[in-house]
Amino acid sequence: MAKITEVTATRFRTISRMQSDSEGHGHPGPPSPSTMALLTVRDDEGDVGYHLTSPQYVTVEQVEGYVRPALMGKDPLARESLWRALWHQQRNSYGRLPDRTISAAEQALWDLTGRKLGLPVWRLLGGDRDRVPAYGSIMCGDERPGGLSTPDEYATFAEKLVAEGYRAVKLHTWMTPVSFAPNVAMDLKACAAVREAVGPDIALMLDSHHYYSRIEALELGRGVERLGFAWMEEPMNEYSMGSYRWLCDQLDLPVCGPESVAGGPQSRADWITAGACDILRIGVDSGPGIGPTLKAFHLAEAHGMDCELHGGGAGALAVLSVVSNTRWYERGLLHPDYDYDQPPPHLHSIVDPFEDGQVLLSHAPGLGVDLDLDYIVANRVPEPEAR
Amino acid sequence: MAKITEVTATRFRTISRMQSDSEGHGHPGPPSPSTMALLTVRDDEGDVGYHLTSPQYVTVEQVEGYVRPALMGKDPLARESLWRALWHQQRNSYGRLPDRTISAAEQALWDLTGRKLGLPVWRLLGGDRDRVPAYGSIMCGDERPGGLSTPDEYATFAEKLVAEGYRAVKLHTWMTPVSFAPNVAMDLKACAAVREAVGPDIALMLDSHHYYSRIEALELGRGVERLGFAWMEEPMNEYSMGSYRWLCDQLDLPVCGPESVAGGPQSRADWITAGACDILRIGVDSGPGIGPTLKAFHLAEAHGMDCELHGGGAGALAVLSVVSNTRWYERGLLHPDYDYDQPPPHLHSIVDPFEDGQVLLSHAPGLGVDLDLDYIVANRVPEPEAR
Repeated sequence: MAKITEVTATRFRTISRMQSDSEGHGHPGPPSPSTMALLTVRDDEGDVGYHLTSPQYVTVEQVEGYVRPALMGKDPLARESLWRALWHQQRNSYGRLPDRTISAAEQALWDLTGRKLGLPVWRLLGGDRDRVPAYGSIMCGDERPGGLSTPDEYATFAEKLVAEGYRAVKLHTWMTPVSFAPNVAMDLKACAAVREAVGPDIALMLDSHHYYSRIEALELGRGVERLGFAWMEEPMNEYSMGSYRWLCDQLDLPVCGPESVAGGPQSRADWITAGACDILRIGVDSGPGIGPTLKAFHLAEAHGMDCELHGGGAGALAVLSVVSNTRWYERGLLHPDYDYDQPPPHLHSIVDPFEDGQVLLSHAPGLGVDLDLDYIVANRVPEPEAR
Repeated sequence: MAKITEVTATRFRTISRMQSDSEGHGHPGPPSPSTMALLTVRDDEGDVGYHLTSPQYVTVEQVEGYVRPALMGKDPLARESLWRALWHQQRNSYGRLPDRTISAAEQALWDLTGRKLGLPVWRLLGGDRDRVPAYGSIMCGDERPGGLSTPDEYATFAEKLVAEGYRAVKLHTWMTPVSFAPNVAMDLKACAAVREAVGPDIALMLDSHHYYSRIEALELGRGVERLGFAWMEEPMNEYSMGSYRWLCDQLDLPVCGPESVAGGPQSRADWITAGACDILRIGVDSGPGIGPTLKAFHLAEAHGMDCELHGGGAGALAVLSVVSNTRWYERGLLHPDYDYDQPPPHLHSIVDPFEDGQVLLSHAPGLGVDLDLDYIVANRVPEPEAR
């Protein structure tokens, strides 16, 4: 039985073509320096697993304080108890051990296990789909002409996505700090323009401003219900499960959630019991991890319910290979001014290549993230001192 | 990617030291000829998986009609879609494709995968417990003096189990056709005698006659509640979920179920939502299979609930290695006149050796069932003609 001998996070400089607005929503930007981190878990048999993430989720405090103590000296295959050891510490971390940190550690263990056994993680899980249907997930709206600043610009971009092969498209509409957001009428104009442009046979979904009132959310829901949308996400703060039950009770339109709620599969069981969603939602980041994300799919399946994954990436694809109570992979975020298919300099190729409406899964052992380790080592930056 | 090239069921003669009464309950009997079956799944890379079962679950009709067509030519690692193909056929089989047939096929796939990758199935699943706490599960009562014919005989046997190292014991009390069964008062006398004999620190559980009325079930539940039992199982027909909700609403004693209900994790989600059980129950046989059994554990975990496995065996042990929302492995059934530790002639050793209150898991690749293949081949009997 192997033992974990190394748990390290390498910070490195790379180039990003995205920039964040004052509320953290991403928009296209000029290529500019950015910092990423690679979590590395190695064992005494020489096997290694990686997970690429933001440096804020593998800080010195998080790695030294939680991840390394939980993993060092342990069997790297003992994913369940290693995950649980971290999960149990989250409560007393008071925010210092976020879901994304736990997920990074768990995904690195999966990557190591797949590499050790010479199998892609999706095959280890018992999956057999090596291509999964994807929807084009459009970035939040903006105020840049020729970008996503008007309903017509959404319509033009959605038409382009359909021409590229997408059979499903999701809109993120305008969020603050956009000057005219939030605005139910504008959201509905964008949705109507997109429906008009792509016709009745393309599945459409909406993820809007997350702080509408119940009344606004119902108005928005009725509007996209009439437009034949496949679902709506998070029009209100997800801290109020009661508001979502109220909304679900009235709409035929499926409400998909929760995305942002803590507690992984457990809080999601409460949402199902409360009737606060029609389609369950979880992400491999908030699962946290591939294992708990699968548990949420199993929970939904037992209740006769679909689950739709929040966000993409190799972990998401591994899950989607094996589950059947789902429809799509979320590919994006996409924008007219952003070349999604161009890999960042630290990857040889992107993780989710697209063809004929589907994303192709890697057959490489592990999670199949095509890292340029030479680039990462060459661009390493020192870790900041622990506080 | 390997392809399945062989799916066969081998019927063979062996020796049983159990016999069934007129209602199918097992009791010790003299060694006598018996027929068992070995389901074999082989792939074009030369890997093989086995599952040992009763010939009634791998009949010519079941293997030729369902299992072989679903598996032949397929990737043996694609457990989820192979399982689902069988599961979807169950509805239209009108009883011809029982859970135990699907489970046999699924467990053979797990055994093959573990052997192919050189890992025990519990390690493939991410588990790390190689010993799990076990309760001694006492056989149904009988009318044989010196067996389990009186409350005192239960007490004497329970004391012996505790002396052997068990820290938990479950009684199956008297079922029809025993002349004085069903009888709530006798059940409670047996439970009280056992509690008196083993003292307050041994966990006790009860599985009684399954056709008591609501009123009788409540009387029985109140009785074992006063005796500090850990749970009660199936005192009533499990077709009535409403009866179980009625019972759960009144008892502090945990009610554990359902055991016999069809529908795997899905019906169990309904029991949880209805409040019809306090501890969930499923077996690898009724899961059906290791994968759906894990899904039921995930369902229970998401709802903050424990799940206790029905029945033992290698598949049960693989599940118990990885899950944490459970307490015990069910070891047995045990009886004063039955040597549980003696392997049948078709096994080199039993699957669940016991030591210090725990069962030890095999570290052999696959499910770790220690088959005597020479014996099985030498005692092969021809399959009956398909009807």
